[in-house]
Amino acid sequence: MLYFDANATTPCAPEVQEAMRPYWSDAFANASSPHCAGRVAAQAVAAARRSVAECLDARPQEIIFTSGATESTNLVFWGLLLAPRTRRHVVVSAIEHKSVLESAALLEEQGFEVTRLPVTPDGVVDLDAAARAITPETALVSVQAANNEIGTIQPVLQISRLAHEVGAFFHVDAVQALGKMPVSMLDWECDFASFSAHKIYGPKGIGALFVKGGPLRWPWPRPLRGGGQEGGLRPGTLNVPGIVGFGAACDRLQQRPANVLENVATLRDLLEDSLGRKFNNSISVLGKNVDRLPNTSGLLIEGIDADMLFLRCKDVLFSDGSACKSGVIGLSHVVDSVLIEKKLKNKFLRFTLLENVTKHDIELLISSIEEVV
Amino acid sequence: MLYFDANATTPCAPEVQEAMRPYWSDAFANASSPHCAGRVAAQAVAAARRSVAECLDARPQEIIFTSGATESTNLVFWGLLLAPRTRRHVVVSAIEHKSVLESAALLEEQGFEVTRLPVTPDGVVDLDAAARAITPETALVSVQAANNEIGTIQPVLQISRLAHEVGAFFHVDAVQALGKMPVSMLDWECDFASFSAHKIYGPKGIGALFVKGGPLRWPWPRPLRGGGQEGGLRPGTLNVPGIVGFGAACDRLQQRPANVLENVATLRDLLEDSLGRKFNNSISVLGKNVDRLPNTSGLLIEGIDADMLFLRCKDVLFSDGSACKSGVIGLSHVVDSVLIEKKLKNKFLRFTLLENVTKHDIELLISSIEEVV
Repeated sequence: MLYFDANATTPCAPEVQEAMRPYWSDAFANASSPHCAGRVAAQAVAAARRSVAECLDARPQEIIFTSGATESTNLVFWGLLLAPRTRRHVVVSAIEHKSVLESAALLEEQGFEVTRLPVTPDGVVDLDAAARAITPETALVSVQAANNEIGTIQPVLQISRLAHEVGAFFHVDAVQALGKMPVSMLDWECDFASFSAHKIYGPKGIGALFVKGGPLRWPWPRPLRGGGQEGGLRPGTLNVPGIVGFGAACDRLQQRPANVLENVATLRDLLEDSLGRKFNNSISVLGKNVDRLPNTSGLLIEGIDADMLFLRCKDVLFSDGSACKSGVIGLSHVVDSVLIEKKLKNKFLRFTLLENVTKHDIELLISSIEEVV
Repeated sequence: MLYFDANATTPCAPEVQEAMRPYWSDAFANASSPHCAGRVAAQAVAAARRSVAECLDARPQEIIFTSGATESTNLVFWGLLLAPRTRRHVVVSAIEHKSVLESAALLEEQGFEVTRLPVTPDGVVDLDAAARAITPETALVSVQAANNEIGTIQPVLQISRLAHEVGAFFHVDAVQALGKMPVSMLDWECDFASFSAHKIYGPKGIGALFVKGGPLRWPWPRPLRGGGQEGGLRPGTLNVPGIVGFGAACDRLQQRPANVLENVATLRDLLEDSLGRKFNNSISVLGKNVDRLPNTSGLLIEGIDADMLFLRCKDVLFSDGSACKSGVIGLSHVVDSVLIEKKLKNKFLRFTLLENVTKHDIELLISSIEEVV
């Protein structure tokens, strides 16, 4: 089985599983319990928080552990929704993950105005459009760091500055960026950011919300209520093994060989070049001309029906769009935003490479596709 | 180390860890991916959903996996908050878990009226007060199945019927009930219920929301937005290992020896009797005269300062209140609601027994306390 679906999820690395192991039944206490076993769990959480913070170029107190990026993003939009007297305009890009687009839609249902920024044919948010859309009425701007389907890297710092110029908050969905490009809360000047551990060889069910300045700087009413954990922003018994696993996954990122992303990019380019040769250059790679994640290839092959290829290549796992559609095979809104020619839209294929991908894997992938075609 | 804090959390059982194992890095795919590896993960989720449903006397489609009971409860209150035209009165008991009390407080901040039902000196919700409080203006009634601090079992069916008579919804926080007393969504006639796996020897970071009739019967706007998972009620990449672990923990409950709870109750009674003898009957067990969880002993010892005992009994882990206070040692609101005499309130101790507790453990506990006192 060849796995080319790393942007959907990654396996939990052996060292991450190993780091979690003691926290299942040995050091299993509730991290909020004031007794000594509780303190052992709390110390493990504190260490993991430092690891995650270091990886994001943030301070530990700015890291709120959540169940994943979808929850993190929802928290930000809910916070704004609860604010009693606030600006009621939100700006997102048209190629955001559904967790951002649908959270924005919730605010729209509740009386907010939402502007969805168009992207260039290369799949990058149009900065001129952003400059026009972000006004003194804007409360929140949310733009992803890198796109999950075509890998294009977005100008987050510029957009962050446009937001801050008018006094709006800036949230970045950095799920796909982490581990595949430099990520810095400080350099990006963001107020909020969402992360999931399972995209970086960590466990599923754990993620983080970065809050600039920490929970005390949270500008709105707290949406989630309960036992007061995570500075009151994310109550509920802490998922200690998951948090420890997230920390270990961040440590792992910091300790990787320096050339890992370069190697992945080389093999991704090999994949695209090989497909180009096999199909007589009738492939179009989306985002080819701009900065992209090194592991992501979103492309179209003229004359090939993506769904058919997908269904027939049983030993090769890739995607014909984002996985976050609950099994619904439908047209990707990202592809829809990038492509003008409607006839091409059902040709979209996404290959996203794991870090340990080999040249041999690429060769097998190419020959599998050839065989089916 | 003697662990008497089972209501705070339980260790993850070996068979639960074993059940999760394949889903970390072998069958690691995203359960929403339509390829074959995704389907393997989705099938594991479906099996776990059946296990949880069976344990709760519910149908699989009525189980929504969440990150834990706090999130489950927040979802219910949030749904109501988002409803455009709705009754705006909520009834909860005064001894609910903070996740219910604070969620109710959020609604109060947003313009709802909240009634907090008093409890009898035995720690049981006052049914007369409930009957008076629940009116045709009431939108939601939320009462726990069993209390986390003193273990008293609440008359959920009667309260559910009071709610339904006026057309209100009924939510039950059943976190502490599961695994310690019969739990039946059907018999309790509830509309919503919250559960956490880590209280039943399952993993932390996973729980469930029971929704009568399933997501299609959800009566309000959906609070969480994203990729549409869990019938649109709880989006985000499914925590496959956690879900599988929750299912395994439910299977484990079904397969336990029939007398496990009886044994626990016998040893809990031994603990209370022994303390009574040692302290010349100067102990008061809260809820002693009513139905209680078999593992829970919330008591006061006259002349003993709970905090001092807690701090000095370093090898015995118990609680002087709920763990969900983020390390803040403060007066338990449950004890506050049950006790009239203020001078007794700082005497509260909670011993909550694991299933595998032994007579020897109880003897060690008693001698540890004796030594300190």
